[in-house]
Amino acid sequence: MNTAAQPPLDIVIFGGAGDLSWRKLLPALYMAHLHGRLATDCRIIGVGRNEWSREQYVAFIDQTSRAYVEAHAMQAEAWQGFLQRLDFVSLDATAPEGYAELAAHCQPGSIKVFYLATAPSLFSQIAAQLDQAGLIDAQCRVVLEKPLGHDLPSARAINEAVARHFREGQIYRIDHYLGKETVQNLMVLRFGNAIFEPLWRAPYIKSVQITAAETVGVGTRAGFYDHTGAMRDMVQNHLLQLLCIVAMEAPISLDPDDVRDEKLKVLRSLRKMSLSDIVRDTVRGQYTEGVVNGEAAKGYLQEADVPENSRTETFVAIRAQINNARWAGVPFFLRTGKRMQNRHSEIIIEFSEPPFSIFAEQAAASTPNRLIITLQPDESIQMQMMAKEPGSGMKMRPVNLNLDLQSVFTERRAEAYERLLIDVIKGRLTHFMRRDELEAAWKWADPIIEGWKQLADRPKSYPAGSWGPAASSALVARENAVWAEAQ
Amino acid sequence: MNTAAQPPLDIVIFGGAGDLSWRKLLPALYMAHLHGRLATDCRIIGVGRNEWSREQYVAFIDQTSRAYVEAHAMQAEAWQGFLQRLDFVSLDATAPEGYAELAAHCQPGSIKVFYLATAPSLFSQIAAQLDQAGLIDAQCRVVLEKPLGHDLPSARAINEAVARHFREGQIYRIDHYLGKETVQNLMVLRFGNAIFEPLWRAPYIKSVQITAAETVGVGTRAGFYDHTGAMRDMVQNHLLQLLCIVAMEAPISLDPDDVRDEKLKVLRSLRKMSLSDIVRDTVRGQYTEGVVNGEAAKGYLQEADVPENSRTETFVAIRAQINNARWAGVPFFLRTGKRMQNRHSEIIIEFSEPPFSIFAEQAAASTPNRLIITLQPDESIQMQMMAKEPGSGMKMRPVNLNLDLQSVFTERRAEAYERLLIDVIKGRLTHFMRRDELEAAWKWADPIIEGWKQLADRPKSYPAGSWGPAASSALVARENAVWAEAQ
Repeated sequence: MNTAAQPPLDIVIFGGAGDLSWRKLLPALYMAHLHGRLATDCRIIGVGRNEWSREQYVAFIDQTSRAYVEAHAMQAEAWQGFLQRLDFVSLDATAPEGYAELAAHCQPGSIKVFYLATAPSLFSQIAAQLDQAGLIDAQCRVVLEKPLGHDLPSARAINEAVARHFREGQIYRIDHYLGKETVQNLMVLRFGNAIFEPLWRAPYIKSVQITAAETVGVGTRAGFYDHTGAMRDMVQNHLLQLLCIVAMEAPISLDPDDVRDEKLKVLRSLRKMSLSDIVRDTVRGQYTEGVVNGEAAKGYLQEADVPENSRTETFVAIRAQINNARWAGVPFFLRTGKRMQNRHSEIIIEFSEPPFSIFAEQAAASTPNRLIITLQPDESIQMQMMAKEPGSGMKMRPVNLNLDLQSVFTERRAEAYERLLIDVIKGRLTHFMRRDELEAAWKWADPIIEGWKQLADRPKSYPAGSWGPAASSALVARENAVWAEAQ
Repeated sequence: MNTAAQPPLDIVIFGGAGDLSWRKLLPALYMAHLHGRLATDCRIIGVGRNEWSREQYVAFIDQTSRAYVEAHAMQAEAWQGFLQRLDFVSLDATAPEGYAELAAHCQPGSIKVFYLATAPSLFSQIAAQLDQAGLIDAQCRVVLEKPLGHDLPSARAINEAVARHFREGQIYRIDHYLGKETVQNLMVLRFGNAIFEPLWRAPYIKSVQITAAETVGVGTRAGFYDHTGAMRDMVQNHLLQLLCIVAMEAPISLDPDDVRDEKLKVLRSLRKMSLSDIVRDTVRGQYTEGVVNGEAAKGYLQEADVPENSRTETFVAIRAQINNARWAGVPFFLRTGKRMQNRHSEIIIEFSEPPFSIFAEQAAASTPNRLIITLQPDESIQMQMMAKEPGSGMKMRPVNLNLDLQSVFTERRAEAYERLLIDVIKGRLTHFMRRDELEAAWKWADPIIEGWKQLADRPKSYPAGSWGPAASSALVARENAVWAEAQ
């Protein structure tokens, strides 16, 4: 990389000693370092309340992040070189004093990336203090980690507070699902090939399923989670973002605002749910004790810090609907849950059956065409098709075509955080949420959450290690669909 | 196979000592035998003029066919078992005497398959003699090898002569291109999947290329070939049959007549060519000396038995057009030749480019989607698509998806002749040409051949080992296409 003409780069991580930093951000930055994606004068400045010296921070990251770097990538010399980039500033985010010191630690004339990996309640203060300390200039950027609000008003409040100090074009609202290789590939498949676009609509697509299933429970996060629930934690952000990528019209260009304009239109086209819609088209669940991956797991109500009468949902299934010409009548089934049978995130595009089959005697063997984009545990893209069985006769058999290209693309695949961090460094906003997207997502989600409250909805129980309440299967069965794993 | 209730089967091969028999038919029948596809009481009766005993015929086949069985399939015991099935009747096809002996060699009450692997000039006499000898009954079948005529009147004459003794439903006009696994798979792909049919038309398909390229020259067949030429030898039958499979509407069922009705409609929709069409949309070629596969090759005019002024074409390229709603405006480029650079037969469905590309900066890298069905030298089906290059950014790269399913279908793949022979045995007519198809193909081909004569068209020369005359490239370049190998 030719850095001669480039200003140096300072990546400032608020919450630099927090979980997200040492588990995800520092290992991702190390991978970028290892593969020559960081310029020589790129520095990483952890910021936190700990009264640590630089050496103490380096030792902390050396100890903690090491385990989150894939073994084959842990090369002693590169790792030491990476640690050289680190610095630390001890700072109380709410007090002006530390910010002057932070300024002193930055390189003269540097491009600054402020990564706010703290509680969102601090975003407003941090932005104000950075501004006051003269750290905000035209070329700096700020990365906002979720949760970005609790509902529309709180999301607006955060956005407005940050907007007082940063232009929208400087704000990177991160959703790591958008950093997945296969999610980005889906855009290329849709818009770079002539064969998909004519099919990408009703009636050729029969339904879309988007699942994000976790095996973990609420763990130590109950204090946060019990006030949040699966709808806010997963559906309003990750699942809706995936829905947008599947459903959006072709943007007029790949410029960030052109892409985000189209995603916004999808969010604004989501059918607003009335109370009767909510009753019919949503299922909330809460896990009870069970067995996950062969190990006994507590029920949600038995987890530490969960109130005994909690009605917080740990599972949601929703039949969403997009009211536009392309998607009218095509159900979008969204589903997420904790303590599910497998860790498994995927998007399934189910195409309609051929209007009539001349292979009638083989009806039993026939399965509809499906495009399956798997995000977790391993990323892949597959097309399920019918092909002829070799031999005489005209028998069909389903085949899975791997579009995952492992055999074609032998390059390393970066993880989502690394890819998104590189996007921030390069100033590419395409895979980040714009303010109006975020607020439109809340506008759809809020009435559903409010509706559950009005209906005094009690989540249906499901045993840990299952695929959620039976009502979830019934929701899709109504439209002649099946959640993929149930097959 | 439960044969208790089935009558025995006699496969009677006229021309049983000829090239086709020992190179193709007997090896194919052996493979069927080896894999348990022939019932115990299936007998194979060679018929020929040689004054041979059964033992002499068995010795002849043992010597000659052996080399045409793939090494891994040559198992001593199975081969001996196969030879046990053989019998021979010495017979002059034009004289009644031998037919009584043939009748005596058939098993009582057997189903008889008469495979006419002789010159077509004998078909009429053989049919009449079989009839006279009482060998034709309701359940027997007759297989007719190409060439089935030289033009429409001669094809009609053959068809009428055979039809005096066999019902159309007993007549199997063989075209071994229709026996190819991938050709049959193309029907399943088209009609067994919902994703192809909406795309399978103008404007989503931009052009179709069908190539059958041979590296061999005219060899010892000049006596036949010089009166025939590539148009009759390859285009009128094989290439048009492939065109039909690509272009036909969905048949109402897989019943032979339903499939053949649709193929007939395609043949009848082929634009009839006027003289000016012929000048513009056809290219004839004749090879001159050159180098094929590293070896010097004579020119056509220097081959044994070729008249020095011969204007017979050894190469044809045609821009055909199908005048119906599905295909209006989509060129079908047909091409065949001897002494070409590679032995290579394939069908290429080229899809249109996306109407607009948002990946403009990558225009150079973009290639249109293509479905490539390769018949020779190895059968395969590939889809060429664009996918995202791994890594940050949104770069595209072409990828080839193998739809050939080798990894999925591990079964043995039968060769075309074996598969078609099994079809005859099972009484399945789908992959054989019906009389009206054959005649419709001649109706399209005759005026072109006649036009060349009227125009006193002299074939353009092309060096052996090339891809044909330059005019062939110009023919497709006019419509912004490229023959696949030229890329």
